Amino acid sequence: MFLDENFLLSTASAQRLYRNYAQHLPIIDYHCHLSAQEIAEDKRFETITQLWLGGDHYKWRLMRSYGVEERCITGDADDKEKFFKWVETVSTAIGNPLYHWSCLELKNYFGYEGVLCPENAQEIWALCNRTLAQPAFSARGLIERSGVEVICTTDDPADSLEWHQKLRQSAFKVKVLPSFRPDKALGIEKEDYLEYLPRLGNIQSVADLKKALECRLEAFVALGCRVSDHGMAAVPFAPATQAEIEQIFQKRLQGVIPSALEQQQFQTELLLFLGKLYAQRDMVMQLHFGVMRDVSERIYRALGPDAGVDAIGDQIRVSALAAFLNALDKENALPKTILYSLNPRDNAALVCVMGAFQAGPAKGKLQHGSAWWFNDHESGMREQLTTLAAEGHLASFIGMLTDSRSFLSYARHEYFRRILCDCIGTWVEEEKFPQAEALLRQIIEGICYKNAKIYFNF
Amino acid sequence: MFLDENFLLSTASAQRLYRNYAQHLPIIDYHCHLSAQEIAEDKRFETITQLWLGGDHYKWRLMRSYGVEERCITGDADDKEKFFKWVETVSTAIGNPLYHWSCLELKNYFGYEGVLCPENAQEIWALCNRTLAQPAFSARGLIERSGVEVICTTDDPADSLEWHQKLRQSAFKVKVLPSFRPDKALGIEKEDYLEYLPRLGNIQSVADLKKALECRLEAFVALGCRVSDHGMAAVPFAPATQAEIEQIFQKRLQGVIPSALEQQQFQTELLLFLGKLYAQRDMVMQLHFGVMRDVSERIYRALGPDAGVDAIGDQIRVSALAAFLNALDKENALPKTILYSLNPRDNAALVCVMGAFQAGPAKGKLQHGSAWWFNDHESGMREQLTTLAAEGHLASFIGMLTDSRSFLSYARHEYFRRILCDCIGTWVEEEKFPQAEALLRQIIEGICYKNAKIYFNF
Amino acid sequence: MFLDENFLLSTASAQRLYRNYAQHLPIIDYHCHLSAQEIAEDKRFETITQLWLGGDHYKWRLMRSYGVEERCITGDADDKEKFFKWVETVSTAIGNPLYHWSCLELKNYFGYEGVLCPENAQEIWALCNRTLAQPAFSARGLIERSGVEVICTTDDPADSLEWHQKLRQSAFKVKVLPSFRPDKALGIEKEDYLEYLPRLGNIQSVADLKKALECRLEAFVALGCRVSDHGMAAVPFAPATQAEIEQIFQKRLQGVIPSALEQQQFQTELLLFLGKLYAQRDMVMQLHFGVMRDVSERIYRALGPDAGVDAIGDQIRVSALAAFLNALDKENALPKTILYSLNPRDNAALVCVMGAFQAGPAKGKLQHGSAWWFNDHESGMREQLTTLAAEGHLASFIGMLTDSRSFLSYARHEYFRRILCDCIGTWVEEEKFPQAEALLRQIIEGICYKNAKIYFNF
Repeated sequence: MFLDENFLLSTASAQRLYRNYAQHLPIIDYHCHLSAQEIAEDKRFETITQLWLGGDHYKWRLMRSYGVEERCITGDADDKEKFFKWVETVSTAIGNPLYHWSCLELKNYFGYEGVLCPENAQEIWALCNRTLAQPAFSARGLIERSGVEVICTTDDPADSLEWHQKLRQSAFKVKVLPSFRPDKALGIEKEDYLEYLPRLGNIQSVADLKKALECRLEAFVALGCRVSDHGMAAVPFAPATQAEIEQIFQKRLQGVIPSALEQQQFQTELLLFLGKLYAQRDMVMQLHFGVMRDVSERIYRALGPDAGVDAIGDQIRVSALAAFLNALDKENALPKTILYSLNPRDNAALVCVMGAFQAGPAKGKLQHGSAWWFNDHESGMREQLTTLAAEGHLASFIGMLTDSRSFLSYARHEYFRRILCDCIGTWVEEEKFPQAEALLRQIIEGICYKNAKIYFNF
Repeated sequence: MFLDENFLLSTASAQRLYRNYAQHLPIIDYHCHLSAQEIAEDKRFETITQLWLGGDHYKWRLMRSYGVEERCITGDADDKEKFFKWVETVSTAIGNPLYHWSCLELKNYFGYEGVLCPENAQEIWALCNRTLAQPAFSARGLIERSGVEVICTTDDPADSLEWHQKLRQSAFKVKVLPSFRPDKALGIEKEDYLEYLPRLGNIQSVADLKKALECRLEAFVALGCRVSDHGMAAVPFAPATQAEIEQIFQKRLQGVIPSALEQQQFQTELLLFLGKLYAQRDMVMQLHFGVMRDVSERIYRALGPDAGVDAIGDQIRVSALAAFLNALDKENALPKTILYSLNPRDNAALVCVMGAFQAGPAKGKLQHGSAWWFNDHESGMREQLTTLAAEGHLASFIGMLTDSRSFLSYARHEYFRRILCDCIGTWVEEEKFPQAEALLRQIIEGICYKNAKIYFNF
Repeated sequence: MFLDENFLLSTASAQRLYRNYAQHLPIIDYHCHLSAQEIAEDKRFETITQLWLGGDHYKWRLMRSYGVEERCITGDADDKEKFFKWVETVSTAIGNPLYHWSCLELKNYFGYEGVLCPENAQEIWALCNRTLAQPAFSARGLIERSGVEVICTTDDPADSLEWHQKLRQSAFKVKVLPSFRPDKALGIEKEDYLEYLPRLGNIQSVADLKKALECRLEAFVALGCRVSDHGMAAVPFAPATQAEIEQIFQKRLQGVIPSALEQQQFQTELLLFLGKLYAQRDMVMQLHFGVMRDVSERIYRALGPDAGVDAIGDQIRVSALAAFLNALDKENALPKTILYSLNPRDNAALVCVMGAFQAGPAKGKLQHGSAWWFNDHESGMREQLTTLAAEGHLASFIGMLTDSRSFLSYARHEYFRRILCDCIGTWVEEEKFPQAEALLRQIIEGICYKNAKIYFNF
């Protein structure tokens, strides 16, 4: 039956692997966008609309695709009307991960197992809101009942980390750690760059900027930060002299937006600088690329960023990525690195370029990030797993992240684990791998939990 | 058994969905290359070779791949010899859609259910020609027995539409509507552009050209046109001032072929202009890109265009496409739009960029065109459906088109419907979607027929 | 059971097709990197490490991905320690072709059928080395027991071919033929180009170079050469005048490294020149592209080329490839050509561009090379076969090559044949092709053996 205990587990081997080795492991969510403040304040939710549709631009997109008017998505319709429109939208969204995630969340957190359809919308609405009224369904309650061990949030270097400090001093058992995401400090082409800079201190030169970033990195590390994150259209590689970089920066301080090349030169310099800092601290560098952001000006002007109008880009050049990695590697300064490209057509090339820079002692020093954002669905995950297995060493993979703003998104870990066990279980049933239980256990437990724990040194 | 009633329907759910909801729906063929004249004149065919091999460059390519000499493809061999060579070629074309289409057409139109192989060529030849001699197997007869409700042909703005007018006045029950395809009017870089222009009137300026196109568009609309179509290597986006556009055009009038940039500027201007006209009229804009045409000069010189020597290109830049859509969208002038890329590697990026411009009230205002031309095969269709489902809203999809020059190609709608029902039926059997019959019916009927009817407002 | 007689053959049809038509056919290995000298001298191996890990950079990469230190890969660890590390690495390499190849090789050559895991490493080590001590397990012995009929090695034009001459005069029954790979002669941008040139003779002009290459080609042909091979980042197409080409060459003779454009112009000229020579001799031209070589300077400096730090590139432009093929085709000088791209995202476009240049009398005059190097795994092969079937004529395919440096790699032909029979057998079981045994036999025998024999005219 749909969504029963064998959901997505199509063979006896898949079911056994999931139940014996995957299902009960804790979750290490090494990359998400949860708010440290909301966790610290233990936020409560009045309606399922707040929790489900408040900031979830994945859902907004789907509603727009279904023809729902904006008033019922981000506009002034009330929570109940929005929820009913969402149910109507998702009820026929066959093949879309939002359908599966929604059903899983309804089952896991609210105990709802009926069909997700307009006829049942009233019943679901009432059930969810009744449940959310219970104290145990606060932000922390949701995290705890999800079996989470570590959460890495995403934080700007200029962030005071006050909420992380409070969390540290609190009784909350789950480790909540900051991640270092200095996109704004590298975003020299952005119009508000000069408004941002002072948040890092008195920055008059590239040296000042580097010093400020290193200083903030230390503060992050002091609070347990093990991970950095960089988002960009494409990994740049345009080396320039220190003098040239300084000149670009000085011009920017005077208000001149740099050319595309100058921007790349500046970002190459800063990324290489930071990469070395990460390597020195045995931190992990995450590189996220292949995104076009805010492509609809109409929506961006109305709603700002993260409004569901981003898209997959095609700007990556694998040769630049290889040259960037090599520039660090040849100085023995390449940190552990996770590559995430949003464009799935580049998966094979990414896994291969990674392979050229692998080196002990870390298992999987370079990682191909789990299928991400627009690829974070069943076929995307299977494709990522299959490609990584065929061209890399799947058993060294660090597995799933939520990349989410929602406290219910831990269902995505279950989703991933089911798909992983189904892939591997199916290979076993198809006799593509022997029935060697100890090896299978090692592979599954590694990918679901143990590899990440060692890799990030949590 | 091969080609029996359960052809391509691998599960009981797939079979049920197909038989109950898909099989008997009428066909809306919103994009094809049938000749209005041939329909109006109710063309007859003497041999299966005329019908099958006359202008079908898909088949020519396959024969060349199999090593058949050109004499037996487009040369002076007689119809029977050509047919026998085709049978030999296709008999081992396992995994190729031409194999399936040919078998379906033989079964559906000629009642032939034996193996398609050289030993049976004589029998098939005789059967087909005997059948074609019957009056009911004329162009109109073939259309009618295929259950077609609407046909949209492809027409140049300079076309007088006389055959469409005649069809309108005829007793033929099937709606045959013109589509507006102004590629020649935008093809400023083509050598014969100045020969083409006068067909649109006395064109001395860009303003003249725009006026003439709008005037012709009105004439098309008056005959029921709901759709435009634009073919191009890649969607351009190179804005320029009106003065610059005029200068490019004036130089062209004097015989100067514009540079690649100028050509893009001109085409950007005209496409944006036309896009607004389509939006005002609630028409649908089709953008076809990713093709390289006539890449073999040897064949092109001998046979002209559409001779089987086109190929998939890699010129698309998703960023330009997004900028083009945004330019219309930000002025609330983006019409309903269908994106077709010939290069399947871009499917995920296309579905995503579409998602960024979706807006009610239309369901699926932007559509990812059905797997097209070189992708119009089983795995191509499954891939398109899966990607659209995972990253968009499959249930809002407008489904299949034939894109064909042949009166037998309606078999491709059956092919598509079987594959669609197999995809969805398999998801149901694999318990990835509940056995919710009303929802399934809504999804299948929508994609096969109802969505297109509403989307195009036929 | 894993690796039993039905390995990878998931249906009764697949099993029947493999056993009746594929399994016992001889092997034509039309592209490999075996050493003619080692065959002529009938090389012996002391340990399985020498045979398996000596030069196999595929395995080195996987060991690095698993975190093995370089000392145990290419360093001074002893053979046994390296072997044990390899076993540990591969034992959990689920989904990787190295796992399957290793298991197949252990079974086929050493009779080992246990689990490949650290617990069994000592047993495997002893068994393999004991076996290799037998005289029948020399280079020639391994080739003969693999059922090989023809081997095409890969040779530089400057090679004296002395070992091929010796092989010709020897009693060895297997045909060992040279292949013409003039990459160094075309590598005008390489630092050591002027050191290489004199190996071809006294070269003072482009004419001298062409003459020398043609002369060497004749010598290769005299020893049975039927195939050339060209490796490059991307197929170039930048035509220039003879005077420009000569100028580029003369500057190079004076030590000036040409610009990227000049390099492309030179290589376009030489490739077109050689293409015509191949066409005149009815030889086959192989074009290998889409590779980035030696991307890790750290490893390249320590170990040289072919050290496991190559990667998939994204430099191909299909338009340039089409223009290159057209330049030969329009002069009726296009030889039989095999296109291999390392980037699987381009498979569909490649098969299509091929289709535009197909012409009798050869079946499949242009071929899409078998899934290659980083794609030489189960899903890569299935993808290549499915794409070729859907957009070309699979039954005209010339099938598998090893592309290997190892005498055990013939297991890859078995791997390919099993996957091929599984694909086709599954299509038959799914009733996508009729149970037409004669046609199926023709397809399978053609792809596994007969097509290559005719295509290369061995």
